[in-house]
Amino acid sequence: MSGNTFGQVFKVTTYGESHGPAVGVIIDGVPPNLSLSEPDIQFDLDRRRPGQSKATSQRQESDEVEILSGVFEGKTTGTALAMIIRNKDQRLSDYSSIKDVFRPGHADYTYFMKYGNRDYRGGGRASGRETLSRVAAGAIAKKILREKGINIVAYTIAVGDVRAKTKDFTVIERNLVRAADMEAAKRMLEKIEEARKNCDSVGGVIEALVHGCPSGLGDPVFDKLNARLSYALMSIGGLRGIEFGTGFKAAEMLGSQHNDRFFMDGDKIRPRTNHAGGILGGISTGEDIILRVAVKPTSSIAQSQQTVTSEKKSTTIDIKGRHDPCLCPRIVPVVEAMIALTLVDALMLQKTITD
Amino acid sequence: MSGNTFGQVFKVTTYGESHGPAVGVIIDGVPPNLSLSEPDIQFDLDRRRPGQSKATSQRQESDEVEILSGVFEGKTTGTALAMIIRNKDQRLSDYSSIKDVFRPGHADYTYFMKYGNRDYRGGGRASGRETLSRVAAGAIAKKILREKGINIVAYTIAVGDVRAKTKDFTVIERNLVRAADMEAAKRMLEKIEEARKNCDSVGGVIEALVHGCPSGLGDPVFDKLNARLSYALMSIGGLRGIEFGTGFKAAEMLGSQHNDRFFMDGDKIRPRTNHAGGILGGISTGEDIILRVAVKPTSSIAQSQQTVTSEKKSTTIDIKGRHDPCLCPRIVPVVEAMIALTLVDALMLQKTITD
Amino acid sequence: MSGNTFGQVFKVTTYGESHGPAVGVIIDGVPPNLSLSEPDIQFDLDRRRPGQSKATSQRQESDEVEILSGVFEGKTTGTALAMIIRNKDQRLSDYSSIKDVFRPGHADYTYFMKYGNRDYRGGGRASGRETLSRVAAGAIAKKILREKGINIVAYTIAVGDVRAKTKDFTVIERNLVRAADMEAAKRMLEKIEEARKNCDSVGGVIEALVHGCPSGLGDPVFDKLNARLSYALMSIGGLRGIEFGTGFKAAEMLGSQHNDRFFMDGDKIRPRTNHAGGILGGISTGEDIILRVAVKPTSSIAQSQQTVTSEKKSTTIDIKGRHDPCLCPRIVPVVEAMIALTLVDALMLQKTITD
Amino acid sequence: MSGNTFGQVFKVTTYGESHGPAVGVIIDGVPPNLSLSEPDIQFDLDRRRPGQSKATSQRQESDEVEILSGVFEGKTTGTALAMIIRNKDQRLSDYSSIKDVFRPGHADYTYFMKYGNRDYRGGGRASGRETLSRVAAGAIAKKILREKGINIVAYTIAVGDVRAKTKDFTVIERNLVRAADMEAAKRMLEKIEEARKNCDSVGGVIEALVHGCPSGLGDPVFDKLNARLSYALMSIGGLRGIEFGTGFKAAEMLGSQHNDRFFMDGDKIRPRTNHAGGILGGISTGEDIILRVAVKPTSSIAQSQQTVTSEKKSTTIDIKGRHDPCLCPRIVPVVEAMIALTLVDALMLQKTITD
Repeated sequence: MSGNTFGQVFKVTTYGESHGPAVGVIIDGVPPNLSLSEPDIQFDLDRRRPGQSKATSQRQESDEVEILSGVFEGKTTGTALAMIIRNKDQRLSDYSSIKDVFRPGHADYTYFMKYGNRDYRGGGRASGRETLSRVAAGAIAKKILREKGINIVAYTIAVGDVRAKTKDFTVIERNLVRAADMEAAKRMLEKIEEARKNCDSVGGVIEALVHGCPSGLGDPVFDKLNARLSYALMSIGGLRGIEFGTGFKAAEMLGSQHNDRFFMDGDKIRPRTNHAGGILGGISTGEDIILRVAVKPTSSIAQSQQTVTSEKKSTTIDIKGRHDPCLCPRIVPVVEAMIALTLVDALMLQKTITD
Repeated sequence: MSGNTFGQVFKVTTYGESHGPAVGVIIDGVPPNLSLSEPDIQFDLDRRRPGQSKATSQRQESDEVEILSGVFEGKTTGTALAMIIRNKDQRLSDYSSIKDVFRPGHADYTYFMKYGNRDYRGGGRASGRETLSRVAAGAIAKKILREKGINIVAYTIAVGDVRAKTKDFTVIERNLVRAADMEAAKRMLEKIEEARKNCDSVGGVIEALVHGCPSGLGDPVFDKLNARLSYALMSIGGLRGIEFGTGFKAAEMLGSQHNDRFFMDGDKIRPRTNHAGGILGGISTGEDIILRVAVKPTSSIAQSQQTVTSEKKSTTIDIKGRHDPCLCPRIVPVVEAMIALTLVDALMLQKTITD
Repeated sequence: MSGNTFGQVFKVTTYGESHGPAVGVIIDGVPPNLSLSEPDIQFDLDRRRPGQSKATSQRQESDEVEILSGVFEGKTTGTALAMIIRNKDQRLSDYSSIKDVFRPGHADYTYFMKYGNRDYRGGGRASGRETLSRVAAGAIAKKILREKGINIVAYTIAVGDVRAKTKDFTVIERNLVRAADMEAAKRMLEKIEEARKNCDSVGGVIEALVHGCPSGLGDPVFDKLNARLSYALMSIGGLRGIEFGTGFKAAEMLGSQHNDRFFMDGDKIRPRTNHAGGILGGISTGEDIILRVAVKPTSSIAQSQQTVTSEKKSTTIDIKGRHDPCLCPRIVPVVEAMIALTLVDALMLQKTITD
Repeated sequence: MSGNTFGQVFKVTTYGESHGPAVGVIIDGVPPNLSLSEPDIQFDLDRRRPGQSKATSQRQESDEVEILSGVFEGKTTGTALAMIIRNKDQRLSDYSSIKDVFRPGHADYTYFMKYGNRDYRGGGRASGRETLSRVAAGAIAKKILREKGINIVAYTIAVGDVRAKTKDFTVIERNLVRAADMEAAKRMLEKIEEARKNCDSVGGVIEALVHGCPSGLGDPVFDKLNARLSYALMSIGGLRGIEFGTGFKAAEMLGSQHNDRFFMDGDKIRPRTNHAGGILGGISTGEDIILRVAVKPTSSIAQSQQTVTSEKKSTTIDIKGRHDPCLCPRIVPVVEAMIALTLVDALMLQKTITD
């Protein structure tokens, strides 16, 4: 209701600031009797972790997760599952100089207008560090989905004007930008490195694909699966847009081109094309779900920028600290997590109407 | 929860099928003592109504709304406000020939897979006719917002490859495509007419702008204002994508280009640019909120299309009935309605944290 | 959220005032493919209807229900199910004399303080007439439960100081107070008749029993089944208390008396006693659920009573109109409805955690 | 939704098992800029703590709370507020002998039937230790309410057949049973001591009074204030009933006796009596809210009891461990907490409908 909870029956509630003592999450609605321990979650946390390479922030965090409840003797009990990740590399000094200054592109100003206060410690709650909780919860959701044959993969398809051309999912974790195109990945990394050297940052596009999703997920009218996914993904900081299937290109198409004709593929009803991106009328078709999100260039750049203070004085700001020159590589696991949370929820809701 | 309710404290619950007895809506959380009567709502219903021109469906519906509760002596009481719109021009015969056939691009197949049944009467609940309830509720939301100086305007900016070049809001209701560019509107209409003559349909893009929105609306983490708006808008049937501010173009920008620098505009803190589209860190900045949605070409086209039946036989379908060759003109008021519902909710939620 | 919606996945949203055009309900989450038509609902509406006897209000309403959506060709579709009941016997003149006077025991004063307005037409939204919507929704819930072997029965066990001594469920619908004790029913009716003649009213106690409820329903911590049932039932106007199993008597018992010892009843684990009333730790045991609610004497009495006006003048009020001298007979079906709504919801939620 | 969250805009989500690493809570919707630090919360935790006297469990826990987020520089920020309390005195050995045995009166059996597993460590999630999270959250709610002049006090009014006769709130914290009657407290304590010596336990009744609650809180139909309070309180383990104002006695009253007549108390509209217990039509009147809850005798008793195992063998159980012979003294702060959470939520929701 007040923004820190996601989901309807697989409900995720998160907390934590970038430089507070900890971030964490409670998941309500985890099915009982699922094998689960910290390593199941740590894998994705490590993918999201800063300090992985020059392409990401140099903050040093081990991001070790501790399960506090909901698991007993290696299995989920069905009760509230809580996880905590202690912050270690807190450097308040990095931020004290900007405590009264609104950083361009950041939420400093809007939080101040909303709450009448300022948590200047690296953005506080607005920091990307809150996504740790999403990834931790998402790791459990992904595990549940995998056991049902549903796999989610996300990958960078553009950094600036460099676009991927192939889709080789086996290479995603073998390049620093998490692209599915090794050759493009190389040029993307150059683009990022160039931005970093220029004290600048660069945007990009991430695509995600869900394979094995059964038909019938999603709810009519307001809780269409694409609407829930849009909500889930657009809640990730730094996203500017989302599209499904043909996306914005659909606007230039004719109905006769765009309609996916059904045919019998053996005993299975399938569409010949998948322009719809796996969702029709808000409900999954059983085809791959395909979506793309636009990622803005990181707001924290090491250049001097004009801005104002909370006392309404003009000033310039020089953001120090340790920042990602491109958000894409580290948002990839967050995208997967949010899709997983949405799908697990839809899957569980679907059970309520079937015998 | 199960999809027919939208909102957290200004809660809208809808019902109704395209060719059932009625569509309607209950709004829970309407503030008391607001002047309200049917004409306040009828205006937007008329904008959404079919049969307005050749550019829209020829179904004849008066779409007259009746308020059933929540209003007494011309004022809202604060209790549940219900509205009903009886369907009049039901033509089941238009649909009986397709009752076992899955129309390409429609939700027939996915509803069948979800629910194990088929309401073949023009899509049943999946019909665009459900948006009547949204527009009725949205009219009340817009009235509440207008009294606070918040105005929402939506307009078609592209039909196929024809793009608007100007933004003259005064002409929107004076052309059949609801464009803010009279000259482009003419060419858009030609595009639609051409599609209609070819038994085809065409997609488009709608832009919306909110003026006068105060800063501070939206909630951190999952209920970011852009996430809530994405959820709201992507729940409209036929949308393929949404973007805010610079949108997908942000992916190609550098941080130094994209960041909106703050400056003092007299006594007011403002950004020099509005690349963020009025929302920063998920919270409104006070600048205009700007977003765009991609509308797919109408799925119902009068061409013969290959498809299959629910008995898994290949067949061809010839959709008769009365359909819009381009959805944009009639989606425009729905877009406004969904934005209004989202903003009223955010406005009311914001009150809970202030004294 | 704002009070007119009940349930989590079987969600019921209601509207309507006592003397407005109609009352109604939308149910979101009705399972698809359930046989359903108006007569399934009418039966319980008739049990709740006024004008059944001298023991109830003389208002003449046929209370005919119309299904507006969610049912097609005699089966539920799984989409939002809406029902409407038009009010017929509206007599505003009965109320015009009291439009500025706060009736003792009624919600006139508190609604005025909450909303700053007054719907004086028989209590408006606060009228017991809103329970029509509950009973209509409950009839569907009861049907779903019956098909799973779960039966709910409620009956008056006390009117004033007259208490039932036997539990013969076959006689409940054969006496006007809906008691399960024919002999007591006679004396209860005398008590009611005596109150009516004295221009007075009388309270009572209703008991309800659920037979066939499976074990495992209810959720730990806040959504314990008894907590959800308490919420459901105490939301019925005029109730002053609720208790489960041994209820308030448990306060005087020792643990050694109160604990229900488990034993093997053939192959089944069962408790020897059912002091817990079928719910242990907030979760159903599989034994009969037993609860009782205290019903206050009807607030509308035909005696002259001291009170004040909204202009803060002292006055006396003489309530005319047509009122029930004892609420119990007509609350019985409402109690059943609210239990049914709670159990269907719990049953559906339980499915989300099982495979 | 799945039971571990309470509240609509002041939302409390809890986790933790009796003998797991920690219990904790996230509160979403805490108003910003409220002074808050650990000592504000510790006071009520200490009141609930075991080991206070012979009348309570001898488990040794310091129950020290740590605030993990949502507070910065001594003030709430408005973002998710998380608190954690590490468990220290975990003695799994106390429970290993009963790991397959269903304790009479406990949730062991029902959790097993619900989830298909058994967390035998002192009841796991079903332990009364989960109320720590409620009390921690309630302490913040109480602080918010106190600043608005709303005070909540709860006190034991009966232990077994010993009933309090006076209401002297100043003595509540000065006797071990938390009664408002020093003389009765002495006899209550004797009753508890007697039960303890007999390896038995005893039930009781707790009354709560809210002073200073403004009129207008609570929502019509399902979210009546008494319904929300019943839900809140009946979710506390071990409660068997709840009543408001005249409660079950109302069943024996006449309308002419029960109706609270309004009169002008100076410039203020007030009822001459408060039989309604401060809530009329589900909305607060502004008078004291008065309610009572029935507490069952503690299920854990040191006597040998017949029961069965999860393998369906008959057995006897001898519960060791450290248990409260009467739950009342330690439930008192939990009752206050749940009332506070309900009222803060109602207060915040009421703001959404006013300007």
